[in-house]
Amino acid sequence: MGSLQQHSTSPVSPISISAAAMGASDRPAISNDHPLVINLDHGDPTMYEKFWKKAGDEATLVISGWETMSYFSNKDNVCWFLERGFEEEVRRLHEFVGNAVVDGKHIIVGTGSTQLFQAALFALSDPNSDQPANVVSSVPYYSVYPVATDYLKSRLYQWAGDVEKYQGEGSYIELVCSPNNPDGLSKQAVLSSENGKGKTIHDLAYYWPQYTAITAAADHDIMLFTISKTTGHAGIRIGWALVKDDEVARKMIKFIEMNTIGVSKDSQIRAARILSVVRNSHDNSKIVHSVEESFFHYARRTMTERWDRLNEAIKSSNGAFILADFPSQHCNFSDEIIESHPAFAWMKCEKEGIDDFYGFLKKHNILTRGGEHFGVEKKYVRISMLDRDPMFDIFINRMSIIH
Amino acid sequence: MGSLQQHSTSPVSPISISAAAMGASDRPAISNDHPLVINLDHGDPTMYEKFWKKAGDEATLVISGWETMSYFSNKDNVCWFLERGFEEEVRRLHEFVGNAVVDGKHIIVGTGSTQLFQAALFALSDPNSDQPANVVSSVPYYSVYPVATDYLKSRLYQWAGDVEKYQGEGSYIELVCSPNNPDGLSKQAVLSSENGKGKTIHDLAYYWPQYTAITAAADHDIMLFTISKTTGHAGIRIGWALVKDDEVARKMIKFIEMNTIGVSKDSQIRAARILSVVRNSHDNSKIVHSVEESFFHYARRTMTERWDRLNEAIKSSNGAFILADFPSQHCNFSDEIIESHPAFAWMKCEKEGIDDFYGFLKKHNILTRGGEHFGVEKKYVRISMLDRDPMFDIFINRMSIIH
Repeated sequence: MGSLQQHSTSPVSPISISAAAMGASDRPAISNDHPLVINLDHGDPTMYEKFWKKAGDEATLVISGWETMSYFSNKDNVCWFLERGFEEEVRRLHEFVGNAVVDGKHIIVGTGSTQLFQAALFALSDPNSDQPANVVSSVPYYSVYPVATDYLKSRLYQWAGDVEKYQGEGSYIELVCSPNNPDGLSKQAVLSSENGKGKTIHDLAYYWPQYTAITAAADHDIMLFTISKTTGHAGIRIGWALVKDDEVARKMIKFIEMNTIGVSKDSQIRAARILSVVRNSHDNSKIVHSVEESFFHYARRTMTERWDRLNEAIKSSNGAFILADFPSQHCNFSDEIIESHPAFAWMKCEKEGIDDFYGFLKKHNILTRGGEHFGVEKKYVRISMLDRDPMFDIFINRMSIIH
Repeated sequence: MGSLQQHSTSPVSPISISAAAMGASDRPAISNDHPLVINLDHGDPTMYEKFWKKAGDEATLVISGWETMSYFSNKDNVCWFLERGFEEEVRRLHEFVGNAVVDGKHIIVGTGSTQLFQAALFALSDPNSDQPANVVSSVPYYSVYPVATDYLKSRLYQWAGDVEKYQGEGSYIELVCSPNNPDGLSKQAVLSSENGKGKTIHDLAYYWPQYTAITAAADHDIMLFTISKTTGHAGIRIGWALVKDDEVARKMIKFIEMNTIGVSKDSQIRAARILSVVRNSHDNSKIVHSVEESFFHYARRTMTERWDRLNEAIKSSNGAFILADFPSQHCNFSDEIIESHPAFAWMKCEKEGIDDFYGFLKKHNILTRGGEHFGVEKKYVRISMLDRDPMFDIFINRMSIIH
């Protein structure tokens, strides 16, 4: 249930041309009313390729055959597999954007934030306890959380579902995803940590200025980020955690050591290069000449345009398809009052007789992820807003026709 | 116990200069009798940097900012995160070396073979069984096996130790490492798989011509390899599995999806480049001009020289330090009769009054890994033979003096 790879390895009728197979800039050579299947199930952030194609050589990485051979990046750091250059760029970017406090925090790199999520569960669990820690989150929750918690049937932790319904004894770990995947809303921890039994993991993958207003520098015990949703580089599999406590950091590092003996150095070095271009694109003195606008300006403008088009498109449904309203807030980064434009559209179907919204859209050759994977009704679906332009265009055209 | 990172994050007195900090070609600016600590605990394959520095541009990889952005490598492959170029190079290299049968096998890429080992445990376990599968191996076994099996306290599988002592009921998974880490000997499965309860994982990380004679193309159900020990590129974290059964392959892929949502594309593309240079270095028509000899010739020559020096050095111990004798065998790859020259020296101390060989060598500022991590007595230690020349030189000089 709710895994990343729901559909893509099984051929999807009637025409299984994927966005990836088409390439970034190719328009499909078929009209919009042709039954091309568009797959918006995954949050594959290929929308961003457009920016990076313009960035040209500034973002290019060259690695010689003899580089990155050792297991070790920095034997003097408790996180011995963390590349110094990557750590520096992560700290600089957070300080520049103002979305998280980095001072006094450990930076831990992971093979995507999914690995770091599991590292955090491991670090927050008590290996000497008779009972697994209960892992909870408020609905709708990210569909990967229950799967990644339970697939190894660990005695350290177990999925316990909706935090609001949680009545369990013993220790728990609360997952707080903010802005939330799938619904884009800001979230706060529900259960208090005051009794000493509860711990929280803050998944801040989407707390970047293209998706939401940066209202404060987040300062939680464990905060997870990923380059996938920051710059669009999902394929390099790099995430990072900001961690306050020394012992928790040490255990998370131990997990990654036992799980994969560290994290690809090549990916870290590449991520550092990409993050430096993001920052430089905002710096007049180090202007990246090949791009016409700064990274977050480009990304925010694109998200705004896409959300405007989606809101316009579903007007024709006369209230059958509903999107959430987001409050407007002051963004410290842009110094403007802005509305959220999440990476996913969380859409509800109010149409009579349609209980399975996923199935309904599938008949129209739009693949989404159904509400049941997020702990709620099938009247909801999550739709990626981050695919390439040709796919997004078809999606919008189709949504403006479907009733 | 027996983890990769036993020492390196804690400062090692009296002088904690690491090989990595010194750089590949720097000789330590201190004499051999100075108490520099040399760390031969890990099998960090930095010896190979010398070859790759000579390879120059042929092995250099250039990646543009817009490449490798999608999660997906190949949506038509059941292993949707496998880069085609990497798969092709893996198949070509095995066919060239003749060490494994690739026809009709799935290739699954992993974040190092450690992740693939865990993926295989997951795939071979029965999620509906009341009892975890027992994971066994013959002693001395690779120190990471028990740790990587048990760290999450899974109900799917559990470490059960020495296969020779195994009396358990229920299902089991036998790990066969050949040539074996730590002792370099060829191994075969001990328990029969005929009763349908037993399954095997063959870890063939060291089944390459620089370490041992290639006597046949291995053709087992699950075979694990890693670029770390093939070419020396540990830091790029790439391993691969050759898998016969469709369902086992599908489950292993599912594990990697849930564990890290695929494997770094950058690392795969780089690995493909490196493997192609290895093959081309043996091909007269595509000669790699910058290197003076083919890769496996270089690697075998270096290993032979190192083992000759070590055997010579310990002669002065008058039988206090003992290394295994290896049988000479015909190597199909080189068409010569050759002796094994393993990546690790597995040394026994026969000196009276010395029960803790690790502790004894540590006093001489040589860090190794003690026998207890491999399921045997403390009279044994495992010593990496793959460190850079300056470290290896000090090691040899020191071993020729110690009694």
